[in-house]
Amino acid sequence: MARVTAGDRPASAAVLIIGDEILSGRTQDVNTSYIANYLAQIGVDLREARVVPDNEEAIVEALNALRARYTYVFTTGGIGPTHDDITADAVARAFGVEIGEDPRAIALLRERFSKAELNPARRRMARIPKGANLIFNSVSRAPGFWIDNVIVMAGVPTIMQAMMDVVGPQLVGGPPVLVETVEADGVPEGAYAARLEQIARGHEGVSVGSYPSFTSAGIRNQIVLRSRDAALLASATEAARTMIASLQKENAG
Amino acid sequence: MARVTAGDRPASAAVLIIGDEILSGRTQDVNTSYIANYLAQIGVDLREARVVPDNEEAIVEALNALRARYTYVFTTGGIGPTHDDITADAVARAFGVEIGEDPRAIALLRERFSKAELNPARRRMARIPKGANLIFNSVSRAPGFWIDNVIVMAGVPTIMQAMMDVVGPQLVGGPPVLVETVEADGVPEGAYAARLEQIARGHEGVSVGSYPSFTSAGIRNQIVLRSRDAALLASATEAARTMIASLQKENAG
Repeated sequence: MARVTAGDRPASAAVLIIGDEILSGRTQDVNTSYIANYLAQIGVDLREARVVPDNEEAIVEALNALRARYTYVFTTGGIGPTHDDITADAVARAFGVEIGEDPRAIALLRERFSKAELNPARRRMARIPKGANLIFNSVSRAPGFWIDNVIVMAGVPTIMQAMMDVVGPQLVGGPPVLVETVEADGVPEGAYAARLEQIARGHEGVSVGSYPSFTSAGIRNQIVLRSRDAALLASATEAARTMIASLQKENAG
Repeated sequence: MARVTAGDRPASAAVLIIGDEILSGRTQDVNTSYIANYLAQIGVDLREARVVPDNEEAIVEALNALRARYTYVFTTGGIGPTHDDITADAVARAFGVEIGEDPRAIALLRERFSKAELNPARRRMARIPKGANLIFNSVSRAPGFWIDNVIVMAGVPTIMQAMMDVVGPQLVGGPPVLVETVEADGVPEGAYAARLEQIARGHEGVSVGSYPSFTSAGIRNQIVLRSRDAALLASATEAARTMIASLQKENAG
């Protein structure tokens, strides 16, 4: 299977979600979040996500923009047997390669469907762009595929996840991004923002985010720190923890 | 407040989700789905969604691409008091307008914060690009804003939703898209794909999607039909329902 080396920089990635059902609000996308977590663990930076409709122009344009820019592009959706499943054809067009029925894909489908069941609609699932490698999945047998730096997966979350399990070990990532979370219960963001900014400035290489949430129990803010450098991350986390503890003490006092 | 007319074509929209927390997998985005449902009801077509990190270049580039293409662009995230909240500055840069502390926004913040509490970090939430109109929210008081065709909202879902309630009535939509769902329990997609395609081809102006799901109870596929034309939609829905019923009968027989 094609391997893409990331060079000196950490491997980067984009997700391209294909499907009218996400943009109409019918379906809540959960694939982006799953892929994001998966990639974080293997040290691949997810830098962008896009959702486009089941429209060939839109898919081709987004795919060409993203594949030129990132180490990997993961697509989900549009590889089933119905007329609105047009991802494989759009990918072939984006790459300017031919597409046709792939005997390897037919063989996989035959594990699930009898000769009579394998009608023209189901055979559509064996349309694979030339030069692509298949991605097996144990759930539905209908394969995804991998062409150059683009990884094409199903939209149904369980099937997509089965495909990620096949693809994941072949991705070239980097050291995983380490994450620390500092709970800032009871301290509003505006009370710690200035000091948090100082901590962020003093620790280049650590990304520092602040995430407010309002629960019935009151303010439950979290400060999230991320870095590939464990020592730097520990230092920034300690600084944030100390700062929040002192504000909590002030509040209680 | 600026009104954007959609001309003859249905109003279109894009969503731009801003935030490292979505791309790291920490937070499941639910704003896209909420906005999608909201827009569908008022007849605005959501055509694209993007997620970008808290990075000014990335925000500016995505915003300029989207605002040139769609009637409305809705952003969420990055308008709080911390150093990673850079959306307002990025929007100003995208439009090439100045940004500064807006006295109207300060007045809103003063409804929540005492003079002493309104520290420099919290005053950041009053930074508004020149020429923008404020979007009030009853939850946190910190306003969103509306500049040209770009609507800038908070990332916290409850606050974003409060802002949508203010913005919604001022959007110029069209006739809402009507939706029908045909349950295809027990019938696999591959068994109805060819006939469904015929129905779709026979009803131009109706978008026909097929959404498989595999539950412990078996196959629970749904066919979703959408159109602005009620009569056309009814005809396509009836055709799909009849077709599925006949397949279910065959299966049972």
